[in-house]
Amino acid sequence: MFSGAQISLYPMCDDYVARILGALSALDPYRDRLRIETDDVSTLLVGTPDLVFAASRDLFAAVAKTGVHTTMSLLVSRGCPGEPDDPICHPPEGGFAAPPDRAAMLVRVERADDIDLPIAAQFALLPLGMGEHMTPIYDCIGLLKDSGLFDRPKHFCSKLKGDAGKVFALLEACFEGFGAAEGHLVLSATVSANSPTKSA
Amino acid sequence: MFSGAQISLYPMCDDYVARILGALSALDPYRDRLRIETDDVSTLLVGTPDLVFAASRDLFAAVAKTGVHTTMSLLVSRGCPGEPDDPICHPPEGGFAAPPDRAAMLVRVERADDIDLPIAAQFALLPLGMGEHMTPIYDCIGLLKDSGLFDRPKHFCSKLKGDAGKVFALLEACFEGFGAAEGHLVLSATVSANSPTKSA
Repeated sequence: MFSGAQISLYPMCDDYVARILGALSALDPYRDRLRIETDDVSTLLVGTPDLVFAASRDLFAAVAKTGVHTTMSLLVSRGCPGEPDDPICHPPEGGFAAPPDRAAMLVRVERADDIDLPIAAQFALLPLGMGEHMTPIYDCIGLLKDSGLFDRPKHFCSKLKGDAGKVFALLEACFEGFGAAEGHLVLSATVSANSPTKSA
Repeated sequence: MFSGAQISLYPMCDDYVARILGALSALDPYRDRLRIETDDVSTLLVGTPDLVFAASRDLFAAVAKTGVHTTMSLLVSRGCPGEPDDPICHPPEGGFAAPPDRAAMLVRVERADDIDLPIAAQFALLPLGMGEHMTPIYDCIGLLKDSGLFDRPKHFCSKLKGDAGKVFALLEACFEGFGAAEGHLVLSATVSANSPTKSA
């Protein structure tokens, strides 16, 4: 099953090019297990969801920890019928869960290491190719509310806040745990650190 | 039918706060017809798709035309069964098209005014709640290829380039013209101007 993401990193500062280039080494531990391609709009990461979320988190943190206001947008996808299979992609051990194992997901998030980076995030879970798509969406929102990271509901998405280590773990858990096991699932997310705007 | 967007504007410069505040007047012509709410991650626009895309375009252009590298991410949605109806939202004249009227869509894009701002963009059309969701996606990609704005296919999305006036018109045409007329449709997009990275 093809899986991966298009991610874009935005440091809000004059020397954003240097900050991004300086952070790229954060991807080095993943380069042998992810296919990585960059153009002028985004960077493609192709590989298993655990690596895609971990690499995104580490790249984001490498810039955000310098203290500048930094955001990242992510379009994460698995199981798109239009994508070719790639041997670098395979489902997580045990497969994508359907039905979701709520207790296991919450434990995974709770056990995720903090990385000393408070962030805000929001995301939409988008299960495609199924008639009853609101069921996994409502299940997902229910899980968020029990995760300790739920900030508030918003139109079209849910807002989270917490340490980046746990927030990225929660995004990964939702992406792997909801939607049909063999289905097409997209997650659209924005994460933000060091915003001068107070959280609403 | 509830419709709107969460949009985030990212000027890559030290004085990003001043640039964003200086651009907010671009929304003034729309304030009586859109519900607008901002927090630390995004700005909500609730209203009809024509106004949502026009207001997003004008806000983006107001910053990007100052010459700084600027991006915007958009999560646009209509028909979500979980959203309350709002009198400020109503389908476009004639309703959302199903099946799509390709010729009319291309004419709309062709006739859209240029605003003298070359941009790159990429987006994913995400038709929810239907089994055969790849049909509108492939139809949409076919239209993009005929639009004169298609740059190249990417994993998980399609890349466009052209004047911001026409690119936003194309995004709006796809959002209104594909997917079930009464269905739940999401569009996830990133637009970018003045990137120092050459288009791939």
